[in-house]
Amino acid sequence: MAKRNFPLSEVYTLLEPGPVVLLTTIRGDKPDVMTMSWLTMMEFTPPQIGCVISNRNYSFKALQETGECVINIPTAELAQAVVGCGNTSGRHIDKFSRFGLTPEAGKRVRAPLIKECFASLECQVVNTDLVAAYCFFVLEVCKAWRDAKLKNEPTLHHRGWGTFVLDGETITLPSKML
Amino acid sequence: MAKRNFPLSEVYTLLEPGPVVLLTTIRGDKPDVMTMSWLTMMEFTPPQIGCVISNRNYSFKALQETGECVINIPTAELAQAVVGCGNTSGRHIDKFSRFGLTPEAGKRVRAPLIKECFASLECQVVNTDLVAAYCFFVLEVCKAWRDAKLKNEPTLHHRGWGTFVLDGETITLPSKML
Repeated sequence: MAKRNFPLSEVYTLLEPGPVVLLTTIRGDKPDVMTMSWLTMMEFTPPQIGCVISNRNYSFKALQETGECVINIPTAELAQAVVGCGNTSGRHIDKFSRFGLTPEAGKRVRAPLIKECFASLECQVVNTDLVAAYCFFVLEVCKAWRDAKLKNEPTLHHRGWGTFVLDGETITLPSKML
Repeated sequence: MAKRNFPLSEVYTLLEPGPVVLLTTIRGDKPDVMTMSWLTMMEFTPPQIGCVISNRNYSFKALQETGECVINIPTAELAQAVVGCGNTSGRHIDKFSRFGLTPEAGKRVRAPLIKECFASLECQVVNTDLVAAYCFFVLEVCKAWRDAKLKNEPTLHHRGWGTFVLDGETITLPSKML
């Protein structure tokens, strides 16, 4: 996919709807990817994101050691890879080759973008106060990428145990402070 | 709607997909409701939820003072009320009467459930370490309610500026640790 620069001020429009994402990290020369759906926006600009990454995950240590990651947003056609990456550990296998994902170099962090995802957000850890108690990291997006040709491809929302709801109809209501 | 007890261990299935919610609080005898979409699950059981509530919101002070709230999940037919509650302040109007919402008594907290929402989660604040820096509260769900008759009603996911994507097709993939 041909992702281009995406304005940081619009990053929230990608994550606020609540899609499942694929988080990439790199430790030494070994990139890894995990499935994540416990995340929220925390600030518009610069965009900040809070996310829970269990300390049982291989990615936890990579994120803690490097302070960097990439949040990649898959469309529904990557559902099989999303489930696969959520059910395996980078300790045992190379998830990129196993699930047909291609690492691509970013600009600001060493962790790779995933070529097959329509949007990727390069992130740096900015707060770890709740890591010990909740495995909760606050990230700041320093560079965002998006394939502008993919405007309304459905993303995936996880309901538990491999069940996902896909994006359906879009509606717009008049919105302004009354 | 006829909401009944819903198991705490399944609360994540309601919030992990990322729906917009209506947060209710009460201060003195004055209940209020605000629209919220910056929230994430943080623990399965007991269910814990992290959420950002701007200190410019009327609800911020109520949550800080009382340590209690209810997270209510609306279906798409409440879209007008969701936008209305997001664009007005409880300082100036009674949002319940203005937007046709009915407060109902809960069991564990004083903040009201919203009758028209298909699910309601009574919550207590359990961590405020990131409130000063990020307006980020950690809540614990102490009692959950759900209308079991409404199984697949679409919820709303906010994309910004009054645009919402509704739940569409549901898919299930085999999911187990490989």
